Amino acid sequence: MSDTTPRTLAFHNDYHAGAHPAVLNALVRTNGIPQDGYGDDEYSASAREKIRAAIGQPQADVSFLVGGTQTNQLVIDTMLNAWEGVISADTGHVSVHEAGAIEFSQHKVLTIASHDGLMNPDDIRAFVEAFYADPNHEHMVFPGMVYLSYPSEFGTLYSKGDLEAIRSICDEYHMRLFVDGARLGYALGSSAPHLSLPELAKLADAFYIGGTKLGALCGEAVVFPNPAGSGLCAQAPQHLTTQIKQHGALLAQGRLLGVQFDALFTDGLYEEIGQKADALAEQLTDVLLRHGYERYLASSTNQQFFVMNEQQYERLTRAAQVALWEPPRDGQYIVRLVTSWDTTREMIDELDARLNA
Amino acid sequence: MSDTTPRTLAFHNDYHAGAHPAVLNALVRTNGIPQDGYGDDEYSASAREKIRAAIGQPQADVSFLVGGTQTNQLVIDTMLNAWEGVISADTGHVSVHEAGAIEFSQHKVLTIASHDGLMNPDDIRAFVEAFYADPNHEHMVFPGMVYLSYPSEFGTLYSKGDLEAIRSICDEYHMRLFVDGARLGYALGSSAPHLSLPELAKLADAFYIGGTKLGALCGEAVVFPNPAGSGLCAQAPQHLTTQIKQHGALLAQGRLLGVQFDALFTDGLYEEIGQKADALAEQLTDVLLRHGYERYLASSTNQQFFVMNEQQYERLTRAAQVALWEPPRDGQYIVRLVTSWDTTREMIDELDARLNA
Amino acid sequence: MSDTTPRTLAFHNDYHAGAHPAVLNALVRTNGIPQDGYGDDEYSASAREKIRAAIGQPQADVSFLVGGTQTNQLVIDTMLNAWEGVISADTGHVSVHEAGAIEFSQHKVLTIASHDGLMNPDDIRAFVEAFYADPNHEHMVFPGMVYLSYPSEFGTLYSKGDLEAIRSICDEYHMRLFVDGARLGYALGSSAPHLSLPELAKLADAFYIGGTKLGALCGEAVVFPNPAGSGLCAQAPQHLTTQIKQHGALLAQGRLLGVQFDALFTDGLYEEIGQKADALAEQLTDVLLRHGYERYLASSTNQQFFVMNEQQYERLTRAAQVALWEPPRDGQYIVRLVTSWDTTREMIDELDARLNA
Amino acid sequence: MSDTTPRTLAFHNDYHAGAHPAVLNALVRTNGIPQDGYGDDEYSASAREKIRAAIGQPQADVSFLVGGTQTNQLVIDTMLNAWEGVISADTGHVSVHEAGAIEFSQHKVLTIASHDGLMNPDDIRAFVEAFYADPNHEHMVFPGMVYLSYPSEFGTLYSKGDLEAIRSICDEYHMRLFVDGARLGYALGSSAPHLSLPELAKLADAFYIGGTKLGALCGEAVVFPNPAGSGLCAQAPQHLTTQIKQHGALLAQGRLLGVQFDALFTDGLYEEIGQKADALAEQLTDVLLRHGYERYLASSTNQQFFVMNEQQYERLTRAAQVALWEPPRDGQYIVRLVTSWDTTREMIDELDARLNA
Repeated sequence: MSDTTPRTLAFHNDYHAGAHPAVLNALVRTNGIPQDGYGDDEYSASAREKIRAAIGQPQADVSFLVGGTQTNQLVIDTMLNAWEGVISADTGHVSVHEAGAIEFSQHKVLTIASHDGLMNPDDIRAFVEAFYADPNHEHMVFPGMVYLSYPSEFGTLYSKGDLEAIRSICDEYHMRLFVDGARLGYALGSSAPHLSLPELAKLADAFYIGGTKLGALCGEAVVFPNPAGSGLCAQAPQHLTTQIKQHGALLAQGRLLGVQFDALFTDGLYEEIGQKADALAEQLTDVLLRHGYERYLASSTNQQFFVMNEQQYERLTRAAQVALWEPPRDGQYIVRLVTSWDTTREMIDELDARLNA
Repeated sequence: MSDTTPRTLAFHNDYHAGAHPAVLNALVRTNGIPQDGYGDDEYSASAREKIRAAIGQPQADVSFLVGGTQTNQLVIDTMLNAWEGVISADTGHVSVHEAGAIEFSQHKVLTIASHDGLMNPDDIRAFVEAFYADPNHEHMVFPGMVYLSYPSEFGTLYSKGDLEAIRSICDEYHMRLFVDGARLGYALGSSAPHLSLPELAKLADAFYIGGTKLGALCGEAVVFPNPAGSGLCAQAPQHLTTQIKQHGALLAQGRLLGVQFDALFTDGLYEEIGQKADALAEQLTDVLLRHGYERYLASSTNQQFFVMNEQQYERLTRAAQVALWEPPRDGQYIVRLVTSWDTTREMIDELDARLNA
Repeated sequence: MSDTTPRTLAFHNDYHAGAHPAVLNALVRTNGIPQDGYGDDEYSASAREKIRAAIGQPQADVSFLVGGTQTNQLVIDTMLNAWEGVISADTGHVSVHEAGAIEFSQHKVLTIASHDGLMNPDDIRAFVEAFYADPNHEHMVFPGMVYLSYPSEFGTLYSKGDLEAIRSICDEYHMRLFVDGARLGYALGSSAPHLSLPELAKLADAFYIGGTKLGALCGEAVVFPNPAGSGLCAQAPQHLTTQIKQHGALLAQGRLLGVQFDALFTDGLYEEIGQKADALAEQLTDVLLRHGYERYLASSTNQQFFVMNEQQYERLTRAAQVALWEPPRDGQYIVRLVTSWDTTREMIDELDARLNA
Repeated sequence: MSDTTPRTLAFHNDYHAGAHPAVLNALVRTNGIPQDGYGDDEYSASAREKIRAAIGQPQADVSFLVGGTQTNQLVIDTMLNAWEGVISADTGHVSVHEAGAIEFSQHKVLTIASHDGLMNPDDIRAFVEAFYADPNHEHMVFPGMVYLSYPSEFGTLYSKGDLEAIRSICDEYHMRLFVDGARLGYALGSSAPHLSLPELAKLADAFYIGGTKLGALCGEAVVFPNPAGSGLCAQAPQHLTTQIKQHGALLAQGRLLGVQFDALFTDGLYEEIGQKADALAEQLTDVLLRHGYERYLASSTNQQFFVMNEQQYERLTRAAQVALWEPPRDGQYIVRLVTSWDTTREMIDELDARLNA
């Protein structure tokens, strides 16, 4: 169904090619069957059950939203109190690339220095301790949540130890832990050590399973694994449908999201997409290294970053579509290449061939 | 492709059946072809051009959003100044059924008494005149926009004369005129007098062409017909992409919306869907009238309202899925029946047969 | 200290004359004595204690804010959940005369028809019952609070029975009851039946004791009588100082408010101001009735409303400063006259004389 | 009138002692004279005229607000577009100590590294250039304003050259320049080079003249020197009274602010307060240096910062009230001492004596 003639080698992002064939087929197969709106359709119900099973939390509260910024905005806004802000790496998506959507919903992003996209738990602890030690902290924004992306915006993964350390800081200081899983499938598919879905569901107060970047036309599954809450922090937001509507985020044909996630969570498709793309990303990196490109940092997921000079950059952009990550500085170009469900071994071989030319 | 065995006769809404086959086929046909994200794909560009042609405004600013509440919230919020509210019929969707999404974006809805879903222009004028005559009006919310839905929430249509009168009040008092076209295609398809798209584009400062309720999986096309503005009022919001992102409403795979609107505006499909459903709605109403049901009000579009007693209500709900419009009062039930792209003559005959049984 | 030569007879409002002499003297007496800022001064502490004693709630949470709109905005915003709106009479200050400050903090005002400024408890019950009976209520704004002003914007007072009925509806539907006491002292001073402060403190989840309109330069004392909450509804907002700061409402020299309320709650001054002004309002009304003016409605507090023709209106405005309440309609003028701490018997006699002239 | 027996030596802030005697006398003298509300009183009118004269801008738009956070929130919110944030030093008051009031009004604070409280113009330019060079800048927050405090939170003053450089960056990138003058009088009174009021009025699109920290009980005068605007940037916000009300910031007895600023701008009192306190601050610093304390940084205004060990800190806090600026780190204490209208030479001598003891 997809056009794989490698005229355009699209490595610039993982949301350029529509839906994975199995997802598209599910939309075709179910089309025309009348369903209730606003998420009360049978496909959404089925997808919810499959996700609950996959994460090992039969009571989990699962909702479907359309996109990543929307999801971050909604989860942060509905979980935080008015006087609270959210801790994030300074490279975090909510801090940099969401047009101020978090501040637009009235919450400050409290930034921690990033190391290859990751926060150091000690830095989080130091930040929170300094806050409570400050004699003026009642005149400041309370840290109410830690936001982290898994994988990070640089494709990197927190170690299990670091995640547990962050969880424990959250417990100590009554902060919620929210994991942005826009590319979660690529963490699950990584050949490096990573959390399983059930482990993630035990760690986070809220997380989402990204669809848009893993083979869906659109869609993110928001999970509150323990909605009744073991404490204040872990509780799911009340009247979530109403709050989603209020944010302008409730889809009339909720089936569009339900059908897609139902397909993604059938026969292990979600993890399969991640695994395949991660493996291809390794091969893609091998090709680039062989052609003299240097890694900007080490990632074990589908996003790979390279640093290069202008000449190398021009050679690469003649061969394929890639993403310039930030304005070039001092002749240095930081470039991102990404694999996704539609990447094939043939595309990588073709890139190899073109770089040889 | 669709399951038309009329086991369930779904007349409860017009967004229960997925996408019109031509829309779905377009998604299938274009799937896998790499495209840029965030609305910069070639299908969105094509859809924009087709809409500009259909409305006769080659300079129009056209953007695609996912749903109706989102669109109302975004247009109202980005067009109004902080000190302004929006005038709406008290039955208007923004006033009643959007979970306070307009207030959530900080603007008051200033309500005018509705007559079968429509405002009387004289009432709007009286409201605005009283506002400016009030010695305390600087302590009140300024009326900055008139919001009206076309067709209304009751399927009714403003007369051309009333629309022109409202436009002229807006001009006089520097208010924008925003037309909610969630079901615009059913106005265009009505056998009663109605505005054409080019007429609408000359009337309104902003309007949207609803897709969700006219054969798309999701999607609304927001149009600022005259973005440079003949005056302050008509100007399109600046940096709209950024503002859409900030509202959490920017789709990564913007192609999903572009492809669907491109299909809807190919070969007159959009108006055809409306026309067919409106004609079936007339036939549906004939059946109900023949079975002793009474119209609640007269509508020439795809939404038909009936008033009935409990016994009639139970008979009807045994035969088909319909929508109870408000809590029953004094034994009276107000019920909505709706046709859409997936309604067929066979379904109406089957309803007739079941009501006979 | 005050200039009582009745050249200008100011009956147009109750906030035109600075501070009651005892309040001003307290400011003079305490000036220059160093105090901590932001409400941590000894005068605020003393005022809090006196208010707790006066209302009979030793655990009450008492904060001082600058003005009425600010107080309404802050209390409503900090007590309501995001998905909730506030029920108010359609003549309520929050509904009409606060420039949309409640919507500006994202909450809808849900209006109930007013009768002389008061809501009928049955209307409130009917509104809430209809909301929960509505099959679409998850797409609507939840009623989360009842706001009422005591006295009302028309100087009228709810009966004790009505207040108890409203309280009981609030309990039944988990709504908070918030009493706007911008002119509370004039209720306490009324010769008609009225709640005492301890009765009010048992009735309301939150209320405020107005200073601005009762002899202070500025200031309102916000009271959460039962901060720990007998249930969710009655709880005081958490981290209130931080939330006040966030609303831009925290005064650096909190002493300004503390000193004034300390004076107002010394030797019964607060109730004395109300009582004296209410008595003078009765005399003022007698004078107007004697001169052929007709009451618009019956009020037992310091605000008196009259309805008159143009000629009567002009005669009155030549004699004194009064407030035109709304734009004249059909030759009818609705006019408010108000007494306050600086009103004297001599001023009323002078008005009498001028109307005779 | 003020209690100058130096039992407590209050050097911890400049808002602990009520009003300057001349300000208090003005309140006493005008009390009881009826005035219109909401800023329409004759004292506010007079104060406005005096300020316009002092800044040399007869057309300036001058409003009075109650406090600093309120003023920062209101000016930033009413001048910025929705998609814009405000550039500030990372030590700026709006960034750190306003409980997130700027984000609460939906705008991001874009921080620049501070050097002794000041931004380097080159850093501002680099930030803005990087923003516009970023290929993703439409997904980011636009820099729409530069906020700077004069004097800074560390008592330091920008050089005239730096201010002109910042102004020119603002012109180039269509940003407004907003100067927080919470302590402006201490800049005007500094023995170091500083802007005059007319120079400031030519530099900034908006600024405020702080009263709370310069002898008023409360109050800040917000100035839009050129309300018609030489360009889009310089325009004053429209319907400012309504917007102030909407923010909960409109005082019913506006006279309270008018009377105080009228007094502060009579006979040069405002600059006199600043000058006297700055001179005493120099003497205070001499005393501390003589006692072996080390300056944390060099300030020529009324705030003086010292760095010390624990022993020195305890000796100092036994002698006087001072402010610990941040949680002590590695045994180092950063401490602020402040002079104000109520500081006397005797208090400094007494501190000297106590440190000798």
